[in-house]
Amino acid sequence: MNTTVKINQWLQKNEHRGIKLLQQLVQENSVRENESSAQAVIIEKCRKLGLDLDIWEIGSDELKGHQAFYCDRKDFSGTPNVVAVKKGSGGGKSIILNGHIDVVPEGNEKDWIHHPYSAVVENGKLYGRGSTDMKGGTVALLLAMEAISSVGIQLKGDIIFQSVIEEESGGAGTLAAILRGYKADGAIIPEPTNMKIFPKQQGSMWFRITVKGKSAHGGTRYEGVNAIEKSILVMNALNRLEKVRNDQITDPLYKNIPIPIPINIGKITSGQWPSSVPDLAWIEGRIGVAPHEKMEEAAVQLETCLKELADVDPWFKEFPAEVEWFGARWQPGNLETNHELIQTVTKAYKKVKGIEPVIEASPWGTDGGLLANVGNTPVVVIGPGVTAAAHDVNEYIELKEVFTAAEVIAEAIINWCEKSDEQGD
Amino acid sequence: MNTTVKINQWLQKNEHRGIKLLQQLVQENSVRENESSAQAVIIEKCRKLGLDLDIWEIGSDELKGHQAFYCDRKDFSGTPNVVAVKKGSGGGKSIILNGHIDVVPEGNEKDWIHHPYSAVVENGKLYGRGSTDMKGGTVALLLAMEAISSVGIQLKGDIIFQSVIEEESGGAGTLAAILRGYKADGAIIPEPTNMKIFPKQQGSMWFRITVKGKSAHGGTRYEGVNAIEKSILVMNALNRLEKVRNDQITDPLYKNIPIPIPINIGKITSGQWPSSVPDLAWIEGRIGVAPHEKMEEAAVQLETCLKELADVDPWFKEFPAEVEWFGARWQPGNLETNHELIQTVTKAYKKVKGIEPVIEASPWGTDGGLLANVGNTPVVVIGPGVTAAAHDVNEYIELKEVFTAAEVIAEAIINWCEKSDEQGD
Repeated sequence: MNTTVKINQWLQKNEHRGIKLLQQLVQENSVRENESSAQAVIIEKCRKLGLDLDIWEIGSDELKGHQAFYCDRKDFSGTPNVVAVKKGSGGGKSIILNGHIDVVPEGNEKDWIHHPYSAVVENGKLYGRGSTDMKGGTVALLLAMEAISSVGIQLKGDIIFQSVIEEESGGAGTLAAILRGYKADGAIIPEPTNMKIFPKQQGSMWFRITVKGKSAHGGTRYEGVNAIEKSILVMNALNRLEKVRNDQITDPLYKNIPIPIPINIGKITSGQWPSSVPDLAWIEGRIGVAPHEKMEEAAVQLETCLKELADVDPWFKEFPAEVEWFGARWQPGNLETNHELIQTVTKAYKKVKGIEPVIEASPWGTDGGLLANVGNTPVVVIGPGVTAAAHDVNEYIELKEVFTAAEVIAEAIINWCEKSDEQGD
Repeated sequence: MNTTVKINQWLQKNEHRGIKLLQQLVQENSVRENESSAQAVIIEKCRKLGLDLDIWEIGSDELKGHQAFYCDRKDFSGTPNVVAVKKGSGGGKSIILNGHIDVVPEGNEKDWIHHPYSAVVENGKLYGRGSTDMKGGTVALLLAMEAISSVGIQLKGDIIFQSVIEEESGGAGTLAAILRGYKADGAIIPEPTNMKIFPKQQGSMWFRITVKGKSAHGGTRYEGVNAIEKSILVMNALNRLEKVRNDQITDPLYKNIPIPIPINIGKITSGQWPSSVPDLAWIEGRIGVAPHEKMEEAAVQLETCLKELADVDPWFKEFPAEVEWFGARWQPGNLETNHELIQTVTKAYKKVKGIEPVIEASPWGTDGGLLANVGNTPVVVIGPGVTAAAHDVNEYIELKEVFTAAEVIAEAIINWCEKSDEQGD
């Protein structure tokens, strides 16, 4: 019986345990600053797999002083990063398997059919915040590792499994792991690509724009200047900038993506009192950064766009809209499609699925940018689940896809890290 | 020496004391739920004037059950209403002198030249939140009463001075005073009209509109529907409604007012996360109600406008924008210009200033609507200070105007309530 068949059978036999692990993980709400109980589930699993555990609270001076560190959280205590290593016998290529444990807030709970942390399984789907982004992917990694060991395969290269915090707000967890010394010859990040292969990843940055008005009594609102009305002009300008930037993207990897590098308005806050004209508004959002682009270039374009508002409305000449680049940013990733890592994953995919994979650019940022640009580790992003479900209410994952992902990833790991010499197929 | 001259001289001689009283009042920050220390200043002053004090915490079941009661505050303890009565000798008309002690929040403190509660006097202006809206007016009332007593005038009619809470959020304080039995033959409310005479007052109502979207990851924002973008359509529709409603206003009292009954957007809140497409937005504001209009008519027009959004964007067909009429509302006031109260105040104004007053409709609601509609008390609004300064940063009042207002109001009171028979001019 060859390795591919053995892995497949092991995964089939252990389906129930795999689902249970994912349920446990989803049931532990791990929104930012609340990641500890979900990490405990990961730690317990890694212990059972006999991995060498490294559990630490991030936040060193080196981390906070690093040029790629962007985070608005001050205190990381109580919510550790977890790295678990399976040492190889030596001589093979090493691989990082990276998943983030933090999830975005659940939004309006009333809009969820099942409670957001129920992990209910229905018609082959598991529901809950984080099921797709990306606890499903993390479980695929753990299943791949367990399958390889369980069928008796010893590898030459090291496997470095990482369950990191803070991906959703800028990647401080992955950056901390890089600075702690974790680098490798390649990395797989199973973010929800719907099992497409993403060699390139869109980067992104968060912005906060302050828009000024002039307060007045609402009954004589014509004596004031409404910061919300001025914010609409700002948002229209950002829409125009998004169009200009996306019209310039010609990379064929983006051909099926409606807006390759979106500018998203995620939040607006203005006013304290219904009967007053508000004098301040804050718009928060994220700007997508193209794989070939530098973060700074994108920042300058947005800043220029805001300056040009003075031509649209003279108000902005006197009271310019001001931008802060706060909190999170994700570096873009830009691996060429002919890189050996992409070839290895493509081959594994074809072997397991029997068809050609779709190779595209990712429509969102991942920690892959940091691994590539700071950690010098080539990265491929491939994982179960669809992007549309991530960050949405009623987030779910097709359980079948989690096991397919585990199978493809196991196959890729074996080919990448190589079996020890004494082992045949 | 005639009464007018005596009053004028007394006010000149007591200028310093008047300014000091206003400073004390402005220095006590009396934003909602924090009115007690400013009321203590009022109480102390009324005691010194020898008035019959009635100090009580509002919030009776009768109040809360009244059809004109609209308030989102549950607990009124610790922030009393104050009424202070100077009984007349009998036979004359009574008058209510009504001022509210609550002020709107100070907005962005950094935009204030002086601290919002400093009460700094500079070049004849006193600066601070509430100086114009409407502690300046309240001090004018107290000075008018003190001047009348001090120059030895005894009146036939009762003077009922009121320092009420909750005007800025719907008039629960004045309504409570009405239900406690305080009615009169006329009322003066010295809101900042810049000493114009307002026989009619714009009413208004607060609204909260909930706008729905569909959440998604910001990197694939085209898979979601941004509640902020949909909110812009809602706000545009409200702008159009405002225009239609104001085009219908033909009352000559509004001829100098750019927008007689504005719809003001005072607040918007949407989104929790810069990288997510927000699925809910809340818009809060106030709609002006014309003097001749019923509150319900205005409400129906806004509700219809929201329903018609389905024609602008089919999204609203499936997910209609929904309105709540929460918290505050101010009934409009609609006194005819030939009413005896308007004549009395006009005559007093001409006697003191030597010129004709400007008679207009108020561009904002006051507690006058409640006094008129619930209390059956004819109301005139006239007071020191300009509307533009109210609710704005760097709110100020021209001190000279406070004393002019005191003089006009004293003159009007004397004519309205009439001197006791044994007194000459």
